[in-house]
Amino acid sequence: MTTRAPDATELDVLGLGNAIVDVLTEADDRMLERLGLAKGTMTLVDEARMAELYRGVGPAVEVSGGSCANTMAALASLGARVAYVGKVQRDQLGEVFGHDIRAAGVAFNTPPLDDGPPTARCLILVTPDAQRTMATYLGACVELGPDDVEEDRVAAARITYLEGYLWDRPEAKAACLKAAELAHRHGRQVALTLSDPFCVARWRAEFADLVAHHVDIVIANEVEICGLYGANSFDDVIDVVRSQSRIAALTRGADGSVIVAGDQTLAIPAMPIAALVDTTGAGDLYAAGLLYGLTHDLPLAACGRLGSLCAAHILGHYGARAARPLKPLVAAANAA
Amino acid sequence: MTTRAPDATELDVLGLGNAIVDVLTEADDRMLERLGLAKGTMTLVDEARMAELYRGVGPAVEVSGGSCANTMAALASLGARVAYVGKVQRDQLGEVFGHDIRAAGVAFNTPPLDDGPPTARCLILVTPDAQRTMATYLGACVELGPDDVEEDRVAAARITYLEGYLWDRPEAKAACLKAAELAHRHGRQVALTLSDPFCVARWRAEFADLVAHHVDIVIANEVEICGLYGANSFDDVIDVVRSQSRIAALTRGADGSVIVAGDQTLAIPAMPIAALVDTTGAGDLYAAGLLYGLTHDLPLAACGRLGSLCAAHILGHYGARAARPLKPLVAAANAA
Repeated sequence: MTTRAPDATELDVLGLGNAIVDVLTEADDRMLERLGLAKGTMTLVDEARMAELYRGVGPAVEVSGGSCANTMAALASLGARVAYVGKVQRDQLGEVFGHDIRAAGVAFNTPPLDDGPPTARCLILVTPDAQRTMATYLGACVELGPDDVEEDRVAAARITYLEGYLWDRPEAKAACLKAAELAHRHGRQVALTLSDPFCVARWRAEFADLVAHHVDIVIANEVEICGLYGANSFDDVIDVVRSQSRIAALTRGADGSVIVAGDQTLAIPAMPIAALVDTTGAGDLYAAGLLYGLTHDLPLAACGRLGSLCAAHILGHYGARAARPLKPLVAAANAA
Repeated sequence: MTTRAPDATELDVLGLGNAIVDVLTEADDRMLERLGLAKGTMTLVDEARMAELYRGVGPAVEVSGGSCANTMAALASLGARVAYVGKVQRDQLGEVFGHDIRAAGVAFNTPPLDDGPPTARCLILVTPDAQRTMATYLGACVELGPDDVEEDRVAAARITYLEGYLWDRPEAKAACLKAAELAHRHGRQVALTLSDPFCVARWRAEFADLVAHHVDIVIANEVEICGLYGANSFDDVIDVVRSQSRIAALTRGADGSVIVAGDQTLAIPAMPIAALVDTTGAGDLYAAGLLYGLTHDLPLAACGRLGSLCAAHILGHYGARAARPLKPLVAAANAA
């Protein structure tokens, strides 16, 4: 353990996630049905199923993605100091992922695989109602493990941010648990996103234990948080959340978000958007705004407003990475 | 030679071009200067220089491109029957290119390279004034050759369309000359785009000979056509063009286009656009509208209007492949 003072951090946020290149394509409900995909969800698929799905969709666009990586890129765009841990292969899509996250201003030095499974892809079908339906082939991500977590980096970050999706692989889960343990040993905080309702269903008991004992900040949408605690309604879940977590930021789509912290319950409105194009990345961008606020000591309400502003930015365009620098949103969140 | 009657074609257009994946990124004039790129032009670069440029740009988006391939995808979207000849490697970007062009409805069966140079990439820097500046690493394209041109396909197409960029490699040029010779032997027509002012400067004498003796339809912008004949102004070049080519379609940006055919000279206005986002692909889409009209026996003025409508569609969004089906534009071009 170093003698670094608690505030002398070099990083605001260190993120751990599945390093994925998104393959974005337009679709309609009939295509989803024909391909056997459940609208609005994320399904894990193997390489053969991914190839079959890819053959069945129209022309696509490739953009770096991955939930946590999207959040880190947005945090850098807001002006935060961020680093990312995730596994790609040394292939063309791995090169694309590495270029884009570094070019966004995020430190990224996880060694790529020299062979084995290719860089992960997420096929995202965007329907005319702006919903996204996802199929993910994890590829090289399955090789992320505890050795990829460096104590120095964790110690240097005010918040270590974990992606719930990582629980789908035992080695990646072990990497998360190591990072959380190190963060707390160095007096830092741990944040977790529950990622996806199906992911919560798969890991409900483990997530509940994590939130209760190893996580300082939990980020979830209303379906995920209700699923975690078996609640029938959002109103029912608030007090459970209050008893289990220090800070919880719960998003509700067009109804904004609710931040629960100690005896505070703050309702944050969604921000108006000019045109709803694609919901891909809305949760990831909300997390970025929130984490920026928390690591820059903004009042909780401003943290939530910045989350809403970042989410609104991404809803108006195609894909999950910001098209314009997000930094001006910080002043807007503080001014309200 | 088959006994097929001249009109019993299976294809409207067969296109030959460099098979390229575009890497689109936003840039400003200072970045162009720092990277040593001349605004608005296309520069050929080697693999090392491409890697250097890529390191110097921000986050990017990968989209299938290639001038002729963009034209073929747009023709398919208009409802034409099209096939494409171009060379990729059996790598991830090659898979992306093959998927996208087939998913667009274009027949594509040129065998990919099993190893050797990777699939070609074109780094496209889009500046806030919507101009695009391009650097192309040709990669696997340099292996395109006469063996990739199938007589059956050429014989089956009303028009064989060649990309001037192919002249930059002797084997690809030989493939074009073979295709042109076969097309005429089977009573078909040959179209050529001059592609780029620098490309014209490199191959001026050969292009002039081609247009005079081996090409039925030439497509060029005003700078390219003036460069070809050493003319000082667009007005000066019209009569030279008339004497040298059967049909010439000459684009003039916001001033629309001029079609010269025999003693006809038709001025076609540009179509109004809601917002100018990115000029990438405007020439490629104009060519698609024109070739659709010519292969569907539309009056020459309607051919030009359809070119303008297709170009206007692509100016309003990012990238060179259409976001919406273009077929409704055919009726609009006929109605005017």
